[in-house]
Amino acid sequence: MPTNRQWLLKSRPQAQANQENFALVNSETPPLLDGQVLVQHHYLSLDPYMRGRMNDAKSYAKPQALGEVMIGGTVGEVMQSRHPKFHPGDKVVGMGGWQEYSILEPDQVNAWRKVDTSTVPLSYYLGAVGMPGVTAWYGLMRIIEPKAGETVTVSAASGAVGSALGVLAKSRGCRVVGIAGGSDKCNYVVNELGFDACLDYKQYTNAVELSQALKTACPEGIDGHFENVGGLVLDAVMLRMNAFGRIAVCGMIAGYDGQPVPMSYPQLILRDRLKVQGFIVSEHMEDWPVALAALSELVIAGKLHPRESVAQGIEAAPAAFLGLLKGQNFGKQLVKLI
Amino acid sequence: MPTNRQWLLKSRPQAQANQENFALVNSETPPLLDGQVLVQHHYLSLDPYMRGRMNDAKSYAKPQALGEVMIGGTVGEVMQSRHPKFHPGDKVVGMGGWQEYSILEPDQVNAWRKVDTSTVPLSYYLGAVGMPGVTAWYGLMRIIEPKAGETVTVSAASGAVGSALGVLAKSRGCRVVGIAGGSDKCNYVVNELGFDACLDYKQYTNAVELSQALKTACPEGIDGHFENVGGLVLDAVMLRMNAFGRIAVCGMIAGYDGQPVPMSYPQLILRDRLKVQGFIVSEHMEDWPVALAALSELVIAGKLHPRESVAQGIEAAPAAFLGLLKGQNFGKQLVKLI
Repeated sequence: MPTNRQWLLKSRPQAQANQENFALVNSETPPLLDGQVLVQHHYLSLDPYMRGRMNDAKSYAKPQALGEVMIGGTVGEVMQSRHPKFHPGDKVVGMGGWQEYSILEPDQVNAWRKVDTSTVPLSYYLGAVGMPGVTAWYGLMRIIEPKAGETVTVSAASGAVGSALGVLAKSRGCRVVGIAGGSDKCNYVVNELGFDACLDYKQYTNAVELSQALKTACPEGIDGHFENVGGLVLDAVMLRMNAFGRIAVCGMIAGYDGQPVPMSYPQLILRDRLKVQGFIVSEHMEDWPVALAALSELVIAGKLHPRESVAQGIEAAPAAFLGLLKGQNFGKQLVKLI
Repeated sequence: MPTNRQWLLKSRPQAQANQENFALVNSETPPLLDGQVLVQHHYLSLDPYMRGRMNDAKSYAKPQALGEVMIGGTVGEVMQSRHPKFHPGDKVVGMGGWQEYSILEPDQVNAWRKVDTSTVPLSYYLGAVGMPGVTAWYGLMRIIEPKAGETVTVSAASGAVGSALGVLAKSRGCRVVGIAGGSDKCNYVVNELGFDACLDYKQYTNAVELSQALKTACPEGIDGHFENVGGLVLDAVMLRMNAFGRIAVCGMIAGYDGQPVPMSYPQLILRDRLKVQGFIVSEHMEDWPVALAALSELVIAGKLHPRESVAQGIEAAPAAFLGLLKGQNFGKQLVKLI
């Protein structure tokens, strides 16, 4: 049986997370018992939600336990199986964590699903046709509920969630304007994903300046917004929302590292009769099948070709994750494990 | 024809509104033309929304024009009529403004409605069985959508909106906790309206302290909140919201006079999957009949006996209004005009 390299959470961040919070260990993979499945991970997904789990704070999910393998989505291949549902060679997706192999217990098997790699590349099941894609779908379809002709904005527009959000909204006849960090990301969003415009928030020093740029990019105002970031970007967008606008709150990465970042203009919720709603996609499993079908259709049609930032080898996971938190990734952040 | 005393908006407030912003004038009431109706106002309603209209800022409604009669709800009696819908002696409610008489033009007649004073006192049609009551009903039934057994909180709990909100929520089987300014108001809310508890926000110097008191008053957390105030109170409540909590935003009086008051913990919208939604009751006229019926039923059953602060005479309107903005009223603020 193979040796399994694993990243454990060694300590909780005091403010910014850093490499010292993680520890790499080796463990021997024991022989399979009846009902177990051995999966070799091909890719590990790195996502902003993991930063929240590193804190020992009340949240929608339990904190990541100290001394245990970091949580994370993975895709891979079944190597050995003593369970009737899986066979060697099956490609599977599930929450395998920051490690090279998973042994699925019988009661975990149903949380993994087989995927078809004949039309969609395996890694996409961690991004555009996985949790990030479904996150975009849910926020758009269940909270923003856009009508054709409306204007929809999204922050972190070049990321795994943002890119799917934009392509989904375009496919529903919306004007879509992204907000991203840097001209490379903005060019990708407009030229490769077909957004109508993209603003580089790094060009603006405060929310009022960014909101003035949004006025030009969104001449008819903003009807729906998908928030991945919070802080300055959310303030700027709120200043441009139309009456009865909807804001789906998916991420507040701006406040993960320390002090909460306030919302500067909450009175706009009243003035413009806004709906501001947070959600966690894992609480809406009933929507996953229809969302995954819509996303895979867009991929197969060539409309959604997500960017990926791929770090190489399990050793690289913490550095890639810390870079993601600073916006250094470009598109879906993965770690390739084989 | 009678002389009509009228309060005009003379100037816009620089920060706090004050008596100098208003001017009292006399005008002669001209003889009625065909299709017109003369109404003598018995009561004028004073409401926080009027403060927003005094600013020349983008809002959901046009600003109050300078040099014109201040906007406001009134109840009164038809004195003369040259319109087939109304007859002398009819009791009516409508937006008569800060003055002693209205002459309804033919195209305004449909915006006034006749009311039945045999079971509900005339003044209540400006409060519990009027716009403030419907405001409470809409926020509760259309945004908070409470289930029996849930905990609902409301700020400005002893006011016209808050008192109706609490009684409506109690009638739906909720635990109801008010937040009000001062022990007199809290005693009224608990002893006369039947709230389960009430906190005097003036006893707490910051949101964290108030939230600790809320923890005791709401041992199972808060599922729904009706916000009339904003600022510290909203921050404190958000710290106690349960997952999937709903916040109906009706007022942000804390920020009317100057700088916006930020929301301190917007990341809780995500963490607790909150829905925070603003609304304006006048945009939901389709709900008024069912809401008014429910409210008048509670009044007739003796469950909703609203407090009123009644100023005497049209001269008293500005001072009473400025007091309302500082929370000096106790219950629905009215001006008695006859």
